[in-house]
Amino acid sequence: MADSIFDRPLENKYHEEAPVTDFEAFRKIVESRRSIRVYEDRAVPDDVVRECLRLALLAPTSSNLQCWEFHWVKNPEIKAQLAKACFGQPAATTAPVLMVAVARPNLWRRHAKEMAELLESQGAPKAVLSYYKKLVPAAYGLMGPFGVLSPLKWLVINLMGLFQVMPRDPMSPWGLKTWAHKTVALACENLMLAFRAAGYDTCPMEGFDEVRVKRLLKLPRGSSVTMVISAGRRAVGGVYGARVRFPESRFLIEH
Amino acid sequence: MADSIFDRPLENKYHEEAPVTDFEAFRKIVESRRSIRVYEDRAVPDDVVRECLRLALLAPTSSNLQCWEFHWVKNPEIKAQLAKACFGQPAATTAPVLMVAVARPNLWRRHAKEMAELLESQGAPKAVLSYYKKLVPAAYGLMGPFGVLSPLKWLVINLMGLFQVMPRDPMSPWGLKTWAHKTVALACENLMLAFRAAGYDTCPMEGFDEVRVKRLLKLPRGSSVTMVISAGRRAVGGVYGARVRFPESRFLIEH
Repeated sequence: MADSIFDRPLENKYHEEAPVTDFEAFRKIVESRRSIRVYEDRAVPDDVVRECLRLALLAPTSSNLQCWEFHWVKNPEIKAQLAKACFGQPAATTAPVLMVAVARPNLWRRHAKEMAELLESQGAPKAVLSYYKKLVPAAYGLMGPFGVLSPLKWLVINLMGLFQVMPRDPMSPWGLKTWAHKTVALACENLMLAFRAAGYDTCPMEGFDEVRVKRLLKLPRGSSVTMVISAGRRAVGGVYGARVRFPESRFLIEH
Repeated sequence: MADSIFDRPLENKYHEEAPVTDFEAFRKIVESRRSIRVYEDRAVPDDVVRECLRLALLAPTSSNLQCWEFHWVKNPEIKAQLAKACFGQPAATTAPVLMVAVARPNLWRRHAKEMAELLESQGAPKAVLSYYKKLVPAAYGLMGPFGVLSPLKWLVINLMGLFQVMPRDPMSPWGLKTWAHKTVALACENLMLAFRAAGYDTCPMEGFDEVRVKRLLKLPRGSSVTMVISAGRRAVGGVYGARVRFPESRFLIEH
């Protein structure tokens, strides 16, 4: 067997066939997804919300550590307060569904341990177990409480990096937070596309008061709000204007 | 007209009809997207890569500031070096397509200015212009060079936040970086799903040496690599095992 998860395994009998998929259907979903600022006053069935949230959690997650949470705020009072914490913007106040995507970076340690146990019970190769038992704790940890050891981690990584290919971030609690936000954002995009696919619309909001949102949902210390996402059916006038994008050539660079 | 972009506009004649979409097609795409560690040795047509990258850029982007870039590494020598900077993992070395998703937080100022000019030329309402001319510079700026004013920004926001609903992050260059990474990650998920929809597969990689990748692609100071994404057709054995997810009930919380 391979020594590291980064080596090619000598044998792998597992296989998942790639099913035939419908590109045009996907293109239509992506192209018709717009940020909706005003919704129709019509409920979204709970089953639809649940299925879209389920698909959100099928997004890839860094090292499969799943440091994410989705809070679905159904209680009308909490929902009204959440909309207020989003500055009362109509994308929140008129929305039949309000959800909060939360990054939980500190869950990495518990999840790595559980991944190792789970994979061990399935007889996973040594390289995979060693990834969760050794590499993950080194990559996401070694910062000390409140990141007091982060400068040291930074120094060691940068020194070693002079001579060899080295993983870099996360080196500090801030880096760990960024790392978790990225994974949550992947799931958020799945969620928004899922609603569009199901005939509904969404609006991702980063205009909110994080302190108030965390207090409202009783989120633990160390968690952060990635974004608030509303969902429902677009009202006439709910899209504020044609999509504006700068020329693609600025952003797509070939080497 | 409304005073703020967070108010509901008094009139908006623009409308985009929501087209009928195919949920089953989408579900199949999301469910069959797996991280592929070994690819078949078959090229992906350039047109497919280009169309998937185009769809990536239709993801929502915070304040429409588009602080993202996708680098498509076609040159075989640079590509080999990039795979080396990803620790030579087979998801990179066997991939016919290698792309690098890059966050460019510092572009916000230039893009906000261009957004204001563009919208002004289209006769956009005052509230929208004021958003790009006043609110955006206050929200994403006011940190001073190298963030020397970030502690002051933090203090003022937290004091004002005692009495009123306040936007919080980004308060520091780190926060700005996180903000940009989130937007790039939304586009990354679009990109990966687009490849799956087109019959191809992908692997998002966060195991790479960011310093070496930045040097290789000559990325400017202030940019950061969100992730490296490979694409191609899954080889038999290219999926290492069945998808592992902890129980949904841990991550989906109802209020």
